[in-house]
Amino acid sequence: MALSSQKSRLRDINNTGFGPNSSVEGGRLINSDGSTNLRKRGIPLWERTSIYHTLLKMERAHFFLAIFVFYTVINLSFAIVYLITGVEHLVGVDKATTLFEKFAEAFFFSSQTLTTVGYGRVAPTGMMTNCIASLESLLGILVFAVVTGLIYGRFSRPRAYLLFSNNLLIAPYKQGKALMLRTTTYKNNHLTDVEASLTLAIHVKENDKMVTRFYPLPLEISKVASLALSWTMVHAINEESPLYGFDKTQVADSKMEVIVNIKGFDDHFSNIVQQRTSYTYKQVIYGARFLPMFERAADGEYTLLELDKINAHELVQFEEDRVMA
Amino acid sequence: MALSSQKSRLRDINNTGFGPNSSVEGGRLINSDGSTNLRKRGIPLWERTSIYHTLLKMERAHFFLAIFVFYTVINLSFAIVYLITGVEHLVGVDKATTLFEKFAEAFFFSSQTLTTVGYGRVAPTGMMTNCIASLESLLGILVFAVVTGLIYGRFSRPRAYLLFSNNLLIAPYKQGKALMLRTTTYKNNHLTDVEASLTLAIHVKENDKMVTRFYPLPLEISKVASLALSWTMVHAINEESPLYGFDKTQVADSKMEVIVNIKGFDDHFSNIVQQRTSYTYKQVIYGARFLPMFERAADGEYTLLELDKINAHELVQFEEDRVMA
Amino acid sequence: MALSSQKSRLRDINNTGFGPNSSVEGGRLINSDGSTNLRKRGIPLWERTSIYHTLLKMERAHFFLAIFVFYTVINLSFAIVYLITGVEHLVGVDKATTLFEKFAEAFFFSSQTLTTVGYGRVAPTGMMTNCIASLESLLGILVFAVVTGLIYGRFSRPRAYLLFSNNLLIAPYKQGKALMLRTTTYKNNHLTDVEASLTLAIHVKENDKMVTRFYPLPLEISKVASLALSWTMVHAINEESPLYGFDKTQVADSKMEVIVNIKGFDDHFSNIVQQRTSYTYKQVIYGARFLPMFERAADGEYTLLELDKINAHELVQFEEDRVMA
Amino acid sequence: MALSSQKSRLRDINNTGFGPNSSVEGGRLINSDGSTNLRKRGIPLWERTSIYHTLLKMERAHFFLAIFVFYTVINLSFAIVYLITGVEHLVGVDKATTLFEKFAEAFFFSSQTLTTVGYGRVAPTGMMTNCIASLESLLGILVFAVVTGLIYGRFSRPRAYLLFSNNLLIAPYKQGKALMLRTTTYKNNHLTDVEASLTLAIHVKENDKMVTRFYPLPLEISKVASLALSWTMVHAINEESPLYGFDKTQVADSKMEVIVNIKGFDDHFSNIVQQRTSYTYKQVIYGARFLPMFERAADGEYTLLELDKINAHELVQFEEDRVMA
Repeated sequence: MALSSQKSRLRDINNTGFGPNSSVEGGRLINSDGSTNLRKRGIPLWERTSIYHTLLKMERAHFFLAIFVFYTVINLSFAIVYLITGVEHLVGVDKATTLFEKFAEAFFFSSQTLTTVGYGRVAPTGMMTNCIASLESLLGILVFAVVTGLIYGRFSRPRAYLLFSNNLLIAPYKQGKALMLRTTTYKNNHLTDVEASLTLAIHVKENDKMVTRFYPLPLEISKVASLALSWTMVHAINEESPLYGFDKTQVADSKMEVIVNIKGFDDHFSNIVQQRTSYTYKQVIYGARFLPMFERAADGEYTLLELDKINAHELVQFEEDRVMA
Repeated sequence: MALSSQKSRLRDINNTGFGPNSSVEGGRLINSDGSTNLRKRGIPLWERTSIYHTLLKMERAHFFLAIFVFYTVINLSFAIVYLITGVEHLVGVDKATTLFEKFAEAFFFSSQTLTTVGYGRVAPTGMMTNCIASLESLLGILVFAVVTGLIYGRFSRPRAYLLFSNNLLIAPYKQGKALMLRTTTYKNNHLTDVEASLTLAIHVKENDKMVTRFYPLPLEISKVASLALSWTMVHAINEESPLYGFDKTQVADSKMEVIVNIKGFDDHFSNIVQQRTSYTYKQVIYGARFLPMFERAADGEYTLLELDKINAHELVQFEEDRVMA
Repeated sequence: MALSSQKSRLRDINNTGFGPNSSVEGGRLINSDGSTNLRKRGIPLWERTSIYHTLLKMERAHFFLAIFVFYTVINLSFAIVYLITGVEHLVGVDKATTLFEKFAEAFFFSSQTLTTVGYGRVAPTGMMTNCIASLESLLGILVFAVVTGLIYGRFSRPRAYLLFSNNLLIAPYKQGKALMLRTTTYKNNHLTDVEASLTLAIHVKENDKMVTRFYPLPLEISKVASLALSWTMVHAINEESPLYGFDKTQVADSKMEVIVNIKGFDDHFSNIVQQRTSYTYKQVIYGARFLPMFERAADGEYTLLELDKINAHELVQFEEDRVMA
Repeated sequence: MALSSQKSRLRDINNTGFGPNSSVEGGRLINSDGSTNLRKRGIPLWERTSIYHTLLKMERAHFFLAIFVFYTVINLSFAIVYLITGVEHLVGVDKATTLFEKFAEAFFFSSQTLTTVGYGRVAPTGMMTNCIASLESLLGILVFAVVTGLIYGRFSRPRAYLLFSNNLLIAPYKQGKALMLRTTTYKNNHLTDVEASLTLAIHVKENDKMVTRFYPLPLEISKVASLALSWTMVHAINEESPLYGFDKTQVADSKMEVIVNIKGFDDHFSNIVQQRTSYTYKQVIYGARFLPMFERAADGEYTLLELDKINAHELVQFEEDRVMA
């Protein structure tokens, strides 16, 4: 059964934000970290980069390294300026004799000005040097205003902290099969009014050309009041499903990609949080079901959620496949 | 009448975020402060802890103690570093002779650097000491950026400031009974578009096994335009209710837990605020009704809300129970 | 025609957040600035006051006065502490001889420490004084963290900046009458998706007792895509309206209060903003219509909105009243 | 065919926030940057200006210039005050002999106080000078609190970063025509749940008077799940459309303006963002279609979006026009 023959039954959607030809075989649409597998060009990099977004998403170590480098570069620049205008206008540097010593004194004076620590062992005199120091302290306040904001912005950025199972399982469900994946919050956060939506991107043959079509994958439960434990999302593969009749081979042939989007309200951020992920056909396990990941505690006083069991599953064989084999 | 026999009438819901076996007798799902009675394991503590959430929720005294301890530890660490690199590079500590005096001078110099107060009586000289001081003042700015953000985040965190009655009352209502609880805002905040939802978790016998089932408890009024005075939420225990026919004994036997979730819009935060609480069967008073908690002021110019009367109720006896007794 | 006789026709609502007896004659529910005319008692003042809400709403002059007083009090307190521990541990105060001079030096040293300006002319020595100064600079940073947050919070608090007409007009409308009020944004902000809701609180006689009943007043247009110019809200007083058949006398007798709530999305705050106001029967003008408040500019290139005309109206006489008179 | 004759077929809307006479020929309602082409008067400028909105929208260069000017003015003012109270109370300025030198010392002392850098080479003595310096350092902290907030507010302000095509195209669509425009995000941001709405403002003759009428322009797809690539919004000009039957001449005669409003949820801001634009009849190209602006990358691993092709289109001739010509 060719994929193209199913065309009439599938309810195609075209409001995914991706065009029919946007993806080619092998190139996924959404990366598993939720970012778009897309590059932009045509306008200069600085115009098409949101510095705020970039600094917000940057890894922590890189972020602090960037601050350190920035701090050093500013101080080096001002040190040069103070050297040019004359270190003799910095009182307290009399003992510095070599150029390097003078430069060091100017550098450290700059850092004391920028951070407004201003010990005063070295202090500016004269119009020009005073002007520069005055501007540097203003700059320092402005720069650290941005840095303060950024650090806090990174720290307090509303995030869903969701852990997803590594695989999509095609599991037995009622009399048939279902596509399943599992998620849970892995931090001490608590989401309420959580909604999930699954979109299938699939390669189908149309007029002898492979094109990408998108279909929603309705869930048995698409909204939970509270995401306290784990949530196994279940898309029943019944006659309504675009995946109906797919066997192991067709799953692989379809080059399918499933885009998962979760949205909920976080109590502590008092904000809506969102997380996206995507699974390719390589992550689909045909014939498997999830094992429980929570249990009652020994003393019966609380529930215990075992985060390392998010991927725990056992293989199963479908009746029909057994017959076929 | 066994609880299990009611199974067919009850409209079971399974989108609560808790599984059917998630709770066991005696272990509640939600604590009365709204947190989840749940422990997680399987990934390291630091990965499953959101420092931001923790610092935001921490008690005020603990929070400021944490800042104080952190401040002291940083200064102690830098004091040791300044001692190692040589206090002779800190000008102004000449009078310090004993190690303790030197350490004290280094410690206070560190604190003056970290807070950028920088009096300058003690000031760094030499490459190494200057470098360390320069880094410490940068660190100080970054650390206090986080602290500034946190203090403000704690201070301005959107909260509902709701006071709940300590008990659930089963009160006379129309011709029958109703489950009632009462809430009010206890601060000078004002909520609009306030929605409440009640979920019942109940232990029922299924196939000789006790399982937890969840049911929504519809309210007579589930949304109020404005939460100015107190709000008595009323769930009528009619034939539609999962609690229909429950007498005093069954309430206790059911090990019932009622999860309350309130969501509204706060004017001053300009944000949605949410508060959760939970009542166990131990908090249910069978046969009682709330007494009013507001009255007209003596001069008739305003309404007076008496917050200490949130729990005020009087006991009543139901007709049927009187007959039975 | 007594008000009580209309009871059956009126669709009473009871989800306003006010109870039926919450208001008494003469005491309005909502003040015209949108706050609730309500007092709370029963728990201590500090527990029922949100300091954040209070400082956010406080008048600007009072807010800065509060900061100034707070700053002075902290410095006075620390000055006393420095005096007690001995001003001789503050190097640089040698010239101070009188107690007042010593106190002044301690006071100014304190302010230099609290603000972290730390000139160093006066600087601490000795364990005790250094410790206190170290704590004061930490306190300074924490205090100004809160102040920074508050100033920014006040400054950036999402507000609707709506100007309302002073009066409710009962104006000719189609073949009958309508209740009208007018609003506009008076700042350079722009609201989209703006919704309005009007609630009528009215005194009716029930069983020989005056009680307050609440009714929604449906608007001809209750949502506008964009609030660019002025918006005249129109409630048609037809047979569906709780105000149907009211003449001048009945408007006054009813002690009516109309609560107005506007909610919209502000572009620049990127947030929902809300504003509330209320009109009592004393603000109703029976027989008047609004005059236009915008016009084309002389050069035809833009529209001119005249904010001082928000209340502009002309008196009209109703046909029926003329007949009756 | 006169425009006025179409009146009956058009479904006029009156909840746009603009009145029927709000616009005159040649004066657009919304500027292409989304601001309203409107002036307000009648209350003083400072009351009708939101300083926060103004400083948030101001161009970056102007914003920093404003800070610089403000900083200079405050320092100049305090320098004068220090001169008046006597520079002899500033220790360390002994070498300054001329008035200019004294003024310069006072100016730089002021800047060192305002930024709390406080070197201490120059330091205050005496009651009066100390008081002023103490107040200036408090002022400095408050001022920079506002500046910190503003810089961060500007930096982190939720924005949609949408690029719109310069023109509205009237393109072939199915068997007829459609009005099309194109948008894309040009930064590394990602919008989800994006909604678009188009409103047509058109001049029609009514009772021999030209008035402005508003009509919604329904889109073939008005909501996309994710705005990853470009989005071509399509309004089919069928019999339902207010633009039905318009030829090149009528488009120009109608003085039409199309107001576009886009709203979506931004992941990184975790906030709703909104952007507005407007097209006048001068920007309509009759008979043109967009050319694709994305393609598969050479290695097939990602999709390439070419932002400079946002306006790329080719001219086409409509069948009917060809016949007519």
